[in-house]
Amino acid sequence: MSIQKPSIPQGTRDFGPAVVVRRNYIFGIIRRTFEKFGFAPLETPTLENLSVLTGKYGEEGDQLLFKVLNSGDFLNKKNAAVTTEDLAAGSKSVLPKIAEKGLRYDLTVPFARYVVMHRNEITFPFKRYQIQPVWRADRPQRGRYREFYQCDADVVGTNSLLCEAEIVLMMSEVLNTLGLTEHTIKINHRGVLGAIYQALGGEGTEVDLFTAIDKLDKIGREGVEKELAERGFSAMAIDTLFALLGVGGGFAEKLERLLAAFVTAGVTPDNEDGYRGLQDLQRVYEFLQEFRFDNFQNLDFDVTLARGLSYYTGCIFEVKINNVNMGSVSGGGRYDNLTGAFGLPGVSGVGFSFGVDRLYDCLEELALFPHNAAVTTQCLLANFDAESERAALPILRQLRQSGISAELYPESSKLKKQFQYADQKGIPYLLLLGSEERAVGKGKLRDMRTGEEQLLELSQVVATLIGE
Amino acid sequence: MSIQKPSIPQGTRDFGPAVVVRRNYIFGIIRRTFEKFGFAPLETPTLENLSVLTGKYGEEGDQLLFKVLNSGDFLNKKNAAVTTEDLAAGSKSVLPKIAEKGLRYDLTVPFARYVVMHRNEITFPFKRYQIQPVWRADRPQRGRYREFYQCDADVVGTNSLLCEAEIVLMMSEVLNTLGLTEHTIKINHRGVLGAIYQALGGEGTEVDLFTAIDKLDKIGREGVEKELAERGFSAMAIDTLFALLGVGGGFAEKLERLLAAFVTAGVTPDNEDGYRGLQDLQRVYEFLQEFRFDNFQNLDFDVTLARGLSYYTGCIFEVKINNVNMGSVSGGGRYDNLTGAFGLPGVSGVGFSFGVDRLYDCLEELALFPHNAAVTTQCLLANFDAESERAALPILRQLRQSGISAELYPESSKLKKQFQYADQKGIPYLLLLGSEERAVGKGKLRDMRTGEEQLLELSQVVATLIGE
Repeated sequence: MSIQKPSIPQGTRDFGPAVVVRRNYIFGIIRRTFEKFGFAPLETPTLENLSVLTGKYGEEGDQLLFKVLNSGDFLNKKNAAVTTEDLAAGSKSVLPKIAEKGLRYDLTVPFARYVVMHRNEITFPFKRYQIQPVWRADRPQRGRYREFYQCDADVVGTNSLLCEAEIVLMMSEVLNTLGLTEHTIKINHRGVLGAIYQALGGEGTEVDLFTAIDKLDKIGREGVEKELAERGFSAMAIDTLFALLGVGGGFAEKLERLLAAFVTAGVTPDNEDGYRGLQDLQRVYEFLQEFRFDNFQNLDFDVTLARGLSYYTGCIFEVKINNVNMGSVSGGGRYDNLTGAFGLPGVSGVGFSFGVDRLYDCLEELALFPHNAAVTTQCLLANFDAESERAALPILRQLRQSGISAELYPESSKLKKQFQYADQKGIPYLLLLGSEERAVGKGKLRDMRTGEEQLLELSQVVATLIGE
Repeated sequence: MSIQKPSIPQGTRDFGPAVVVRRNYIFGIIRRTFEKFGFAPLETPTLENLSVLTGKYGEEGDQLLFKVLNSGDFLNKKNAAVTTEDLAAGSKSVLPKIAEKGLRYDLTVPFARYVVMHRNEITFPFKRYQIQPVWRADRPQRGRYREFYQCDADVVGTNSLLCEAEIVLMMSEVLNTLGLTEHTIKINHRGVLGAIYQALGGEGTEVDLFTAIDKLDKIGREGVEKELAERGFSAMAIDTLFALLGVGGGFAEKLERLLAAFVTAGVTPDNEDGYRGLQDLQRVYEFLQEFRFDNFQNLDFDVTLARGLSYYTGCIFEVKINNVNMGSVSGGGRYDNLTGAFGLPGVSGVGFSFGVDRLYDCLEELALFPHNAAVTTQCLLANFDAESERAALPILRQLRQSGISAELYPESSKLKKQFQYADQKGIPYLLLLGSEERAVGKGKLRDMRTGEEQLLELSQVVATLIGE
């Protein structure tokens, strides 16, 4: 066997203990919140048939799917041997003969597939959450990985706007529990965007308009004006746009003023989507009031929020952390047709997801990880000789029986080495059972952070460690 | 887009909510136990370089690796275009040109790779656990999947037999916590098997001997005798073997008698491994006594336990559930050379793992899942009209703030439909806020399992649900 210097594939990561513990802290809060709101967990396989995945993410997405080679002699499968003609015709001709499976690209398509396959067993409305990794053969770059987790929650089978209100509550709860109190939950509605397009007189294309609006954050009003002019929007249309985008006030006021502005700007009463958009947002707002939601200062009805329009049909959401320079950490919206591609039309729903990598970076930048979110072992029992080792064993057992993570250094070594071990593993307490301590039936508990030492009975050691 | 009837790849599984919750119950107990014993979590990527995976699992294992196609135009990679000559030469010639990555096959090789890559940051002894899925392109069959979880815990960088004793403690704790009290933890030592081979006079080959012994459970003494005779073992050797295998008694007695039997049977004092094997087992036994281990009746020094001998060099373990007809649910052992293939010799360690699919089946067969291990939502608030909906919202919020998973049926529907929803989702309580209840500031809490209804104030509802 040749000796290699091992490495991992570009865009993938090892998560060492300290990072896993912190990531699990975030996952735990998200999971707990989803469950408190009645969402049940679903897990789908990593491997999906390419027939399920292909064509669902656009041509670019198809390129970014990781495809898995058929097992065995993949060139000579029954009825699908690869020929020199296939080879000459290129990868696209060879691919279907050598690969039938791919890696999960997101959690939405597998969810849709699951709903279709199990539609007769599922009780609708179906509230599911799913926290699993996905894979994309993207060019790796800073902050973009080829393997990363998504945390999705969706409700399908109901049009109730209660779901939208609860998405705001869940976003708020997760962020506040994580300590990310300086956040903005942006909400908008696909219909409102459509009405704005009508108000502009139907110039240019909707896609051009929303693509430009989406850049407002980055290129500012002037940049957007320039881009729209280049794309054929008249100066009048652009003025109308910024009049509408400039409507200010709190949530309720903004709704009212925008309604008036629609009428002025000529959004016709038959623009059902547009007026429904305002009504929907109004209802979501009322639901939140009835819920006694107390974070309205963090909720922003943002008419400029666009988000991948091809997919969403109702309310749309996006969350930013105000005091960190970072893209959105959460987003979602309502869609009309989740399962149409699998032959089951009319399944509408609403969902959202959290980006755990970004949340992690925010917590780290703001130093918001609780100090115990890096710890696994709470107490290390020192081992300096055979007698201290023997004395440690029953105590070790009792600590664990009290629910305390504890370990005995497995060899009688120099204390310095054991201190280093505790230090590097982030173990907050060291328990010393020297002959003097044993003589009085006690142990010396050392707080590794302060260096403070206390002579304690076992019950006191347990109490101190549990109190941590 | 053509309409398809979707499916999942052979040998993979969707885990619906009820199953995920039960699997998480098992994972939670395993994880908690690992952590109480000072093991820290590690996660490695799903995708590994084929250079890391290939050659580590034997030729059969290489066949069973899932290989991932290079992205982009995989036939025409720079310096690695596939030619007609490659095609003619077959899959083995084409493979290295079109696939560089594969799916994780187990957790041991990625762990070894991690240790080598991070050896300068890791503090040894390094205690890590890892709970992640692995993939094998095996022929799918009942109970054998292409994607399944492994739950591994290993300590590397110490020879202390404390680790072996703690493996017994962890196996015992996980099984007892799960309620699988009728189990046998078998322990043996590679050196003991080697000594037995010497005692037989060095006839035949070691592999033949252990392969035959391993079948004792299945084919009985007569079968094994026959097989050994066919493989060239003399009648005397076979008699010696059964004399040794027949040594009875408790753990300590068996050790003593086996030592005597070794001497009688001519195991020479220079058979260091053999005598060290007995000493190691003796020390593990003492450690357990010092730990006040109280499950010795479940621990069996089983001289016939062999387990894949190529890998292990010291103690070996295996766990069976006595009252279920099923293979082992856990196993492991000590190894000398974890990272040699990656150029880092001398890293020894000891590890073990649990098979979560088998544990799941045992718990199901013995009806040992706790009743609340299937539940996500604890309380459904009924929604019969706009007023009950409005009244429900602040109560819903307060239930969740009290840590209770609760949901409001999202639409005003017939009560029957809402009962069905609760029933099928396994929700144990329904809270009714009709006009009569609201008039007295109370709610009617219905226990869905018994049909019993109580008129309660909100604080009483909370107390009842938390008490569940």
